[in-house]
Amino acid sequence: MLHQVLVSEVGLRDGLQSVQRVMPLQAKKDWIAAEATAGVREIEVGSFVPETLLPQMADTPALVEFARALPGLAVAVLVPNLKGAERAIAAGAGKLSIPLSVSETHSLKNVRKSHEAMIREIAAIAARIAEEPADQRPHFEVGLSTAFGCTIEGSVSEDRVVRLAEQAIAAGAAEVCLSDTAGYANPRQVKRLVRRVKAAVGAGRLNALHLHNTRGLGLANALSGLEEGIDTLDSSLGGLGGCPYAPGASGNIVTEDLVFMLAAMGVDTGIDIEKLLRVRALIETALPGEPLYGFTPAAGLPLGFKGRDA
Amino acid sequence: MLHQVLVSEVGLRDGLQSVQRVMPLQAKKDWIAAEATAGVREIEVGSFVPETLLPQMADTPALVEFARALPGLAVAVLVPNLKGAERAIAAGAGKLSIPLSVSETHSLKNVRKSHEAMIREIAAIAARIAEEPADQRPHFEVGLSTAFGCTIEGSVSEDRVVRLAEQAIAAGAAEVCLSDTAGYANPRQVKRLVRRVKAAVGAGRLNALHLHNTRGLGLANALSGLEEGIDTLDSSLGGLGGCPYAPGASGNIVTEDLVFMLAAMGVDTGIDIEKLLRVRALIETALPGEPLYGFTPAAGLPLGFKGRDA
Repeated sequence: MLHQVLVSEVGLRDGLQSVQRVMPLQAKKDWIAAEATAGVREIEVGSFVPETLLPQMADTPALVEFARALPGLAVAVLVPNLKGAERAIAAGAGKLSIPLSVSETHSLKNVRKSHEAMIREIAAIAARIAEEPADQRPHFEVGLSTAFGCTIEGSVSEDRVVRLAEQAIAAGAAEVCLSDTAGYANPRQVKRLVRRVKAAVGAGRLNALHLHNTRGLGLANALSGLEEGIDTLDSSLGGLGGCPYAPGASGNIVTEDLVFMLAAMGVDTGIDIEKLLRVRALIETALPGEPLYGFTPAAGLPLGFKGRDA
Repeated sequence: MLHQVLVSEVGLRDGLQSVQRVMPLQAKKDWIAAEATAGVREIEVGSFVPETLLPQMADTPALVEFARALPGLAVAVLVPNLKGAERAIAAGAGKLSIPLSVSETHSLKNVRKSHEAMIREIAAIAARIAEEPADQRPHFEVGLSTAFGCTIEGSVSEDRVVRLAEQAIAAGAAEVCLSDTAGYANPRQVKRLVRRVKAAVGAGRLNALHLHNTRGLGLANALSGLEEGIDTLDSSLGGLGGCPYAPGASGNIVTEDLVFMLAAMGVDTGIDIEKLLRVRALIETALPGEPLYGFTPAAGLPLGFKGRDA
C-alpha cells in the first residue's frame, strides 16, 4: 500500500448535482477555500454541462477562476463532450474528466451517445487539448462509469470495462478512472478489476477510483483499491448528494471518514483532519436540512489521535 | 481469504444493552427465530448480568431456552463473571463470552476488576466448565475489549493485548476475540494485531472480531481481518444500539451490510439476504423510533444480484 494518497473532493460536482437547491456561488467558494486550507489538493469544482440541464452547475466558470488562484490546488471539472471541454479549457481548468459509461444503455440514456460516439468524442477532446501549449494542457481523464454494475443493465462485463479502458487510452486519454456509479462494487471485484485494467492499459494509466457508499461498502472498496496501488480516491464532504434513486442511501464515499481512515492507517493525504471536520458547518449553513453522511463527524476523533497508525 | 464466514448476531445483547426501552420477550423471540430462519447460525441472545444493572437482559434464561430449540443455531451469551457463567451453564448456553478489557482503567470502571482478578475469574470459569460432561461443555471465549483503543486511556499497547490473550488462553479459554469497543480500529492495525495475536496464541485461538462502526470503518476493518484468516464476525441487525457516548454515531457493524458484502464477494455465510433484510421490520415495530443503521436496507440489492461475486 502506498504512503501517499490524493483525496479528490467531488462534492461540489457529484454531490451538488443531486441537490435541487442551487448553492450560492459565495458558499461554494467558501467551501473550496476551506478545503484547500485544510490541505485538500484536488477539487472537482463543477461541470461544463448546459445550464438548462443543470442550473446548479451554471457557475462552474467562476469557480474554476476562483479555485485556480488558490495555491497548490488542482482544479478539476467534468465535461460531457467536446463543447464542454472547450469551455473548460477556456476557463483554465487543470483537469478534465469525461464519463464513459460501460453500460451502453446507461450511456445512451445519460448522454445520448453510443460507445463508438463517446470514443470519437474522447479523441476529439484529446486532439483539442493537444492544440494547447505543452505547459498549459489540462490533464485528461476518462471516468469509466457503471464499471462495477448498472442500475439498468445489472452486472457489467469486465471484458467490456477492459476494452473501453484500452479504447479510451488509445483515443488519447491520459488515464482512466473506475467509477462505481451505482454502488454495486465489492472489495474482491475492485481488486480483480483494478488488476485487469492496470494490466491492460499500464499501471500508470489507472490511479483513481470513484466509489459510492450506497450499500455501505465504500471504504472497504477503497481499502481494496489501495492494496492494488490505487493512489487517488474521489469523495464528497458529508457524502453530499445521497442517491436520488434510493432515499436514505448515501452517495459518494464521505471525505471525512475516508481521510480519517487514511490518517489512522498512517497514509499521508496532506490534509489536516481537524480543519476538514470544521468545513461541514459551511454546507449545513448553506443548505440547511440537506442530509449529510459520515460517522467521524458525529463521533469525533479518537482520544489522543495523532493522525498516524499507532 | 476464506470461503465460509460465520456471522454472529449480537444485536440482542450488545445492541439492546444500549437501548433504554425493554424489548418485549416475544419480540426478542421473533427476532431470534426470524434470523435463524434466514440462516444466521450463531446469535448472542443476552447476558447474565444482575437484573438490577441491566433490566433489558433479565429474560436471558428464557431466550437461551427458546433459542436452544431452534435447529442448527449456536446460542451465545455474555457473562461478566463466574456467577454469570454458572447461570449460563444452568440455562444451557452453547457459548460463553467474557469481556476482558485491555484497558485496565476501563476494566476497573466496567466490572470493577483488575486484570489479575479477571484472569482468576477466567480460570475459575474454565474450571467450572470442565466439571460439565465432555459433550455438554459450552465453548468459552474471552473478548479482549478495547483491544484497538479506549475512550478513557486512548491508545492501547499491542504488547498488552498479546500478553492478555496469552494469559486468557493459559487460564483455560478456548479462544480469544478482538473487540473494537470504542470504534478506534483501522484496517492496518487490525491486520497487524490479528497477526501478532495469532502468532502468540496459535492461529486457531483467534477466529473472531467484534467491530464497531463508530467512525465508518467497520466493514473496511472486517475486510482486513478476513484477509488475515478471521472467519467469525460479530454484527448487529440495523446496527442497533448506536453509541451512547457519541449521539448519531453507529455502534456494532450492521449485519445487513456485512452479509451483503460477504455475499457479493462470494463468501458463504449460509444466510439468505432477502430474508435477512425483512427481519428489520420486527425491530422497527417493537422499538418504534429507535435509530437503525445500514445502507443496504435503504438501497436494496443490486439489480440481478445473485449473492456471489460476479
